[in-house]
Amino acid sequence: MLIVKKFGGSSVADKERIFRVAKRCIEDYRAGNDVVVVLSAMGDTTDELLAKAKDINPNATKRELDMLLTTGEQISVSLMAMAMNSLGVPAISLNAFQVEMHSTSCYGNARFKKIDSERIQHELDSKKIVVVTGFQGVNKYEDYTTLGRGGSDTTAVAIAAALHADSCEIYTDVDGIYTADPRVVPNARKLTEISYDEMLELASLGARVLHNRSVEMAKKYGVQLVVRSSLNRTEGTIVKEVVKMEKLLVSGVATDKNTARISVIGIEDKPGVAFRIFNTLARKNINVDIILQSVGRDGTKDISFTVAEDDITDAIRILEENKEALTIKEIKHKEDVAKLSIVGAGMMSNPGVAAQMFEALYNAGVNINMISTSEIRITVLVDEHDIDRAMRAVHDGFGLGD
Amino acid sequence: MLIVKKFGGSSVADKERIFRVAKRCIEDYRAGNDVVVVLSAMGDTTDELLAKAKDINPNATKRELDMLLTTGEQISVSLMAMAMNSLGVPAISLNAFQVEMHSTSCYGNARFKKIDSERIQHELDSKKIVVVTGFQGVNKYEDYTTLGRGGSDTTAVAIAAALHADSCEIYTDVDGIYTADPRVVPNARKLTEISYDEMLELASLGARVLHNRSVEMAKKYGVQLVVRSSLNRTEGTIVKEVVKMEKLLVSGVATDKNTARISVIGIEDKPGVAFRIFNTLARKNINVDIILQSVGRDGTKDISFTVAEDDITDAIRILEENKEALTIKEIKHKEDVAKLSIVGAGMMSNPGVAAQMFEALYNAGVNINMISTSEIRITVLVDEHDIDRAMRAVHDGFGLGD
Repeated sequence: MLIVKKFGGSSVADKERIFRVAKRCIEDYRAGNDVVVVLSAMGDTTDELLAKAKDINPNATKRELDMLLTTGEQISVSLMAMAMNSLGVPAISLNAFQVEMHSTSCYGNARFKKIDSERIQHELDSKKIVVVTGFQGVNKYEDYTTLGRGGSDTTAVAIAAALHADSCEIYTDVDGIYTADPRVVPNARKLTEISYDEMLELASLGARVLHNRSVEMAKKYGVQLVVRSSLNRTEGTIVKEVVKMEKLLVSGVATDKNTARISVIGIEDKPGVAFRIFNTLARKNINVDIILQSVGRDGTKDISFTVAEDDITDAIRILEENKEALTIKEIKHKEDVAKLSIVGAGMMSNPGVAAQMFEALYNAGVNINMISTSEIRITVLVDEHDIDRAMRAVHDGFGLGD
Repeated sequence: MLIVKKFGGSSVADKERIFRVAKRCIEDYRAGNDVVVVLSAMGDTTDELLAKAKDINPNATKRELDMLLTTGEQISVSLMAMAMNSLGVPAISLNAFQVEMHSTSCYGNARFKKIDSERIQHELDSKKIVVVTGFQGVNKYEDYTTLGRGGSDTTAVAIAAALHADSCEIYTDVDGIYTADPRVVPNARKLTEISYDEMLELASLGARVLHNRSVEMAKKYGVQLVVRSSLNRTEGTIVKEVVKMEKLLVSGVATDKNTARISVIGIEDKPGVAFRIFNTLARKNINVDIILQSVGRDGTKDISFTVAEDDITDAIRILEENKEALTIKEIKHKEDVAKLSIVGAGMMSNPGVAAQMFEALYNAGVNINMISTSEIRITVLVDEHDIDRAMRAVHDGFGLGD
């Protein structure tokens, strides 16, 4: 078997943890597998480097920031190879130049274009564990790039795809993917398997286990992902194309408190107005999520939508600046709201799922503000103080617990 | 003019010093020059990285150590480029992969084979200051290598050679090359110029301003070196092929206390014995310096020689182990000795120089243990407690002071 294993920064934060990871990889190696390990920078290294840069130049170019930040992973991979060597196992560290991890030119937020497998394969053929820097690429100018948030997951998946690996294991601080956040829903159950599409809906909904981009890439190249804990030996959750049908319609419940609602009141009830509002926001990089438009009345209508809480000030400022052009009479907002979503590939062929969710919320006395659906997801906006109760109610309503 | 400027780790140890170096480079840039800056790792970074490695694996491979250590210069060059940018000047940092600094394969002690000028020239053509990592290369396996002690000086000279730079300025914590160590000889005089050959003799004799390898490379490619202070604006010393004849026969006096004398007594007075002794030591990487062989007597002879003090224990152990084979009756050693050398291109054509040196030492009451000479150097071994007095006496004897 060829296994790619990815460990985050906290898993290699100090000597003890480095050796823990080294031993875990060596077990797989000694069992006869080819092993590639992808690492992030140790602990807070990236933040420390960023602080140094900010001290020198608060407006440093992303090109130079990437040149600086990529040292973080190079330190962790070389120390990891040394640790493995000291345990008697041949290992070699490689950076983005050595592997030839070609990325787009965009500094700070690059995407992979092509990953050469030749060097890694050569080292695997010489029976070495190969330890590769995550998070970084090299662009057409022969400059370092970084991949943005969750980048090391993407590196692991991209390498697994290039090498046609049998499995890509993402080690995190949780056991796997749960039917709901176990801190809120005590009887939440760990899923054995989940499909790429379900995982994508969950990832974008705030279940911060896997980054969306890595799941998208895994889906595209058919890389089987395993999400497991770096702290224990439990089996984890397998993310793959088709999961064996479980009895459940719904795989999981996710919540996101980082959301706020904006209402624009009394806009002209004629074509193109809604387009202009969302176009104005999009041009300022503000992502709009759930949208609800009222039926027109007296020649005007109201539109409500949600944005990330971090964007609320910018969004309101932009709308105020364009109030007249957009024919807005009044702008209202509410920050103490939260999203609750259920995700499940099974709901596509089962029309009663939404009603079942609303019933569970009604029985728990939770008021629904807004509703949005996709083929395999139903999201509702509720008051933030209701969210935990709502989550437990829906989780129980679908019988997801143990 | 195309100027290559090299600054060591202490010159970029913190934010304040980084900006001091940045401003100094920007002056040359604003005066219309093309500027390439070569940097070492900041302050104690290299030692800190080595300590981390040692903690993980005291026997880490040199390949992985180089992978780790090269992050040090990458941090300093990216921060320097950020500092220059913040002062309104376009600048770009480059590492050994980006420049394509091809080296031999030898990890930890590589030598340059070829440095591509294309990328640097391209960035200079776009009117940028180019900030390059010192100390590192890339070998034929596409692995990082490091150059060993004084490596960043060599990088600067190699880049100056590849770009046909007009000048290669090495910034240190001294003003230039002096006729003797100013801490010992208060009236020591700074030299305006010195030849490559004189500098080579001085460098190998413990005047730790320029590393030998960088001077050798500068001589080979005709790169004009300037040794100057990073702390002030004085002119420094120019190192080049032919210096204008000064009145002085002797350019400088150097001392080296890191030396010890070993005497092997009573060895057989027949051909090949001396060869076998030094061959045995050489195979264990022990460098022998001055050698003195007594005239044979009663079929035996004695040989004395000097080694670096760090090697004395190993040297004696090796000789003891091979005592019988090497026909040695007795091994003696003396550690409190020191070397005193005078260097000067002028002494080639002036036979009286040695006598003048010995006279100065005789007048100062300094006993000479051993003598060794080259075309442009005379070295004597004296007791360590005499060395400072001997240095002043010789310096005055040749009228080298102000």
